[in-house]
Amino acid sequence: MALIVQKYGGTSVANVARIQAVAKRVKRYRDQGDDVIVVVSAMSGETNRLTDLITQIDENGSCREKDVVLATGEQVTMALLSMALVKQDCPAISYTGTQVKILTNNAYSKARIVDIDAHNIQSALQNNQVVIVAGFQGVDKGGNITTLGRGGSDTTAVALAVALKADECQIYTDVDGVYTTDPRVVAEASHIPSLALEEMLEMASQGSKVLQIRAVEFAYKYNMPIRVLSSFDDADNAKSTLVTREEDVMEKVMVRGVAFSRDEAQLTIVGIPDIPGIAVKILSPISDANIEVDMIVQNIGSDGTTDFTFTVHRNDYPQATQILEQVCKNLSARECSGNTTIAKVSIVGVGMRSHAGVATQMFKALADQDINIHMISTSEIKISIVIDEVHLELATRTLHDEFEMSKGLSEV
Amino acid sequence: MALIVQKYGGTSVANVARIQAVAKRVKRYRDQGDDVIVVVSAMSGETNRLTDLITQIDENGSCREKDVVLATGEQVTMALLSMALVKQDCPAISYTGTQVKILTNNAYSKARIVDIDAHNIQSALQNNQVVIVAGFQGVDKGGNITTLGRGGSDTTAVALAVALKADECQIYTDVDGVYTTDPRVVAEASHIPSLALEEMLEMASQGSKVLQIRAVEFAYKYNMPIRVLSSFDDADNAKSTLVTREEDVMEKVMVRGVAFSRDEAQLTIVGIPDIPGIAVKILSPISDANIEVDMIVQNIGSDGTTDFTFTVHRNDYPQATQILEQVCKNLSARECSGNTTIAKVSIVGVGMRSHAGVATQMFKALADQDINIHMISTSEIKISIVIDEVHLELATRTLHDEFEMSKGLSEV
Repeated sequence: MALIVQKYGGTSVANVARIQAVAKRVKRYRDQGDDVIVVVSAMSGETNRLTDLITQIDENGSCREKDVVLATGEQVTMALLSMALVKQDCPAISYTGTQVKILTNNAYSKARIVDIDAHNIQSALQNNQVVIVAGFQGVDKGGNITTLGRGGSDTTAVALAVALKADECQIYTDVDGVYTTDPRVVAEASHIPSLALEEMLEMASQGSKVLQIRAVEFAYKYNMPIRVLSSFDDADNAKSTLVTREEDVMEKVMVRGVAFSRDEAQLTIVGIPDIPGIAVKILSPISDANIEVDMIVQNIGSDGTTDFTFTVHRNDYPQATQILEQVCKNLSARECSGNTTIAKVSIVGVGMRSHAGVATQMFKALADQDINIHMISTSEIKISIVIDEVHLELATRTLHDEFEMSKGLSEV
Repeated sequence: MALIVQKYGGTSVANVARIQAVAKRVKRYRDQGDDVIVVVSAMSGETNRLTDLITQIDENGSCREKDVVLATGEQVTMALLSMALVKQDCPAISYTGTQVKILTNNAYSKARIVDIDAHNIQSALQNNQVVIVAGFQGVDKGGNITTLGRGGSDTTAVALAVALKADECQIYTDVDGVYTTDPRVVAEASHIPSLALEEMLEMASQGSKVLQIRAVEFAYKYNMPIRVLSSFDDADNAKSTLVTREEDVMEKVMVRGVAFSRDEAQLTIVGIPDIPGIAVKILSPISDANIEVDMIVQNIGSDGTTDFTFTVHRNDYPQATQILEQVCKNLSARECSGNTTIAKVSIVGVGMRSHAGVATQMFKALADQDINIHMISTSEIKISIVIDEVHLELATRTLHDEFEMSKGLSEV
């Protein structure tokens, strides 16, 4: 008998029929002897409806009250699912973030989970009930309702799985797992049955939208296996992706997948003094403006000056440019420039750790296609490049082929 | 400086524009130096939308989960109103029943308020904030969300007014107060500027839909003045009805109003032994079936037998008839019969206490119109009769004229 946490997203509980289908699935696990904790999102469309009401009143209004409004979405779903389970003769009880309680800090609309009181959930499980918990929400120590931000239900699920020492955290969504890359870009993208948490972390942060990055971080930190499944596939042999510790991954490959992002913009400052602390002088004003910097590259200087390039989210580009122009003046730099028609492409795989030559192979494949690389950044299990946006699809397909991901052949 | 509790019903907060209008009104009170606690209902239509979802899942499902779903309606309104106030530069904070906390028993869907913790509200008032509280909901001692049943927001408002020692509890609705009778039946029905709580209690329980009966009972018990106003009338001299202690009512009249109800059905058992305890033998099985009995009349018997008549809600009539037929057999009664085409009409007024002859005047006026009376029941401040339903309008108009309510002339 296992303890399983299941999380169902908005499309999985979009209407009464979907909620009843979820209840049927939960009951199936229950009937085979598992203890089940279910985390639900708001019915799809509901969060938008509530956000619309909020926006009509005051777009920039108090985050405390926004969270109070938004938290109702999950509260409705959880109670309806509980009723649907009881209707199917499966004892169940629902809890809000306050009722659990899921203690967070009081950073409204992006709160962080501080602690989870397992007491109510454990009593209910002992009482033979399925426990349903509202995702995305918590309560601060003053009793104020908080939310974790969009996608926060994944984080709720993983945090509960960790707190209750679950055997597995299942994330049900509208796709049946993680693919080697976006099938809309590469038709031959293949399903990944299992990958390492580190890989998922890089895939998620690079733009794969299947799992919320914070949830993966949390799972990574506490070694909680996550399984991604489709709530629309009821077959016994339905596909899924298990995201787990590196040593538990069945099939080890050199390159697990190709991730990409079109959301970046690049800024360069040229001819600045090559002295200690210069990076701080450039980046401090940027981060002071709450702009997140992604890739950073600094070239070794030759004439006592150096060049510095970094990327930000495309939405932050206009503000970042303004700031950089001021920095440029202050540092008497030669010039600063920017580019918004770029894209980032990354290859990810824990196998890279023990393989030399992956980068060379990557760059050669791209050069063969005449794709020019603007920036390169590497980590132990990832190589990211910045290229012109027009080359995004070609680069992705090229790398997907080069590392034989379509056929699952690039085994270690 | 006064402390005022204001309650706004569903039509008063039906949409964003209405919520903003409520905020404007609240701010007006705030600006003139009053402390204001606001109790809100769900936006009109919302409770029906949620009930519909519940019904689709399981009509007879767990009341605990139903309450969890329904409580979200008020939670949304309270936070939106709080945001609207802050947007109008009026500091505000919202609290759910759990956050206040409004402690109730755990009779889901019809919970009773047991205690109110005034601490959070008082802190917020001292903090110069308008406090907005979700009506209709509370929390039991296990932390479960409860609701007070439809119309429960009135009860929340009065209970808060009592707990916080408010100067007045204002109930905003879509009418500007209480009328001598339903203006749809008697066009000349006149507005009542003030009446006694006892009178309102009788008017409310007799079918005047302006105030929730439990709220009036609560106000009566704790001597809390209630003012009924229209949230759609913004004029400075807008009409209102103050419901207050008998000694504080400005204008004392013999008959304050005519109330009526079409929801009743009459049952009669004829020829039963006229012995002690017979009423219990008849009514026990009825109340065991959770059927509420309204009027009860027993005639003095002549031949050692007696007749017994009572009324129940028309919805309960079929079940009550079945039960009574069994009782009829057990008691060897001559026969039992029933009638669903009846109506109840009552005249109400604290002035009756000191006036003889009101009943005679009432019966004569009805006799002059050839209206036959089936049952009569009297209390200190009310006389109720049961007549054929077809005579309801005529009887109401006749009594309204007879006691000169159109002109406000029947002063004591």
